[in-house]
Amino acid sequence: MFITLEGPEGSGKTTLCERLELLLTSKGYDMVCVREPGGTLIGQQVRDILLDQGNTGMAPQAEFLLFSASRAQLVREVVKPNLETGVVVLCDRFLDSSLAYQGYGHQLDVDVLREISGFVTAGLQPDLTLLLDVLPEEGLRRRKQAPDTWNRLDAYSIEFHSRVRSGFLRLAKDNPNRWKIIDANQSADAIFNVASKVLLEALEKPSV
Amino acid sequence: MFITLEGPEGSGKTTLCERLELLLTSKGYDMVCVREPGGTLIGQQVRDILLDQGNTGMAPQAEFLLFSASRAQLVREVVKPNLETGVVVLCDRFLDSSLAYQGYGHQLDVDVLREISGFVTAGLQPDLTLLLDVLPEEGLRRRKQAPDTWNRLDAYSIEFHSRVRSGFLRLAKDNPNRWKIIDANQSADAIFNVASKVLLEALEKPSV
Repeated sequence: MFITLEGPEGSGKTTLCERLELLLTSKGYDMVCVREPGGTLIGQQVRDILLDQGNTGMAPQAEFLLFSASRAQLVREVVKPNLETGVVVLCDRFLDSSLAYQGYGHQLDVDVLREISGFVTAGLQPDLTLLLDVLPEEGLRRRKQAPDTWNRLDAYSIEFHSRVRSGFLRLAKDNPNRWKIIDANQSADAIFNVASKVLLEALEKPSV
Repeated sequence: MFITLEGPEGSGKTTLCERLELLLTSKGYDMVCVREPGGTLIGQQVRDILLDQGNTGMAPQAEFLLFSASRAQLVREVVKPNLETGVVVLCDRFLDSSLAYQGYGHQLDVDVLREISGFVTAGLQPDLTLLLDVLPEEGLRRRKQAPDTWNRLDAYSIEFHSRVRSGFLRLAKDNPNRWKIIDANQSADAIFNVASKVLLEALEKPSV
């Protein structure tokens, strides 16, 4: 099963990912937990370019292609081989982040990005996506409390981050069977409680 | 006018590019000379990933997307703004290298790469492309004489490099108005003599 966590900056995905990994491992699931951009040695180098605050003036198209390069490597090196052997893969961001950030945020054509993404992911789609929905003001307030990890993407305008949030909500509404929206304005504990319930239900469904 | 130099490894593009830049500048042309991958600060960081011999196991799709990211940035930051003000742009490799290397070399679908490239380059095509055609054995022999610049792409198999060369020849044959094939098994001086003649003729044509 391939599960992705999505959401704006400061929505608590990274913390949640670590806690879900501990939970699933303790329940006996074989699992790997990866993040985007990154998750491979090559992807980590791409991540450094994407987050570097010195790289102002990055064209939105170049940004999309860099995320896509990291994703193409991650799918082939980690995600597919693990799914093929029955391992649960939990990914902190995936394709939907590109649709939300470069599509809705930078206002590139979402249909074009989706089409290119077929090549990037070889058609792979998550089975379940948890959207941690947070108000941009609250998300950025949280991010500012961790100034060492503040990055080039955090620094986009509040209008950009609002478009990203609306983009995520729209993607979720277009495909309610795959997406579960979690209110991420709550505490980390409250988010974990809801997310773990949704995730365990999905993993334990007989059809999976 | 937008002019690209293409060809397999060791075909002498870089040396030729430098000499053509000197020639055109001495003739009074305003020009910029750039290379791919690279040509911008962001592109240079992408170049480091692509050429790093430690990055074995790079998926061909990720390789294509990294070249494309560098290209998307180069087009928007350097090529288009210069062309718009009448500056001649000379580029050491462009889109056709991706078709030859990742398409014909790695055997990804050339039509799919071409379609994605419309997004990458915003439809920009070179006005003139010089193909420095060299036998793979001769090209790699030359590259081995410069071991400090030997890179991850040089290290692909001779069969790969042969497919790349055939790919370039096929691209040139499909579009003979844009491409001029130059025998690059000759000396650097002989290559320069032919290339400078072709280039000056094209620049001095009344239609340009």
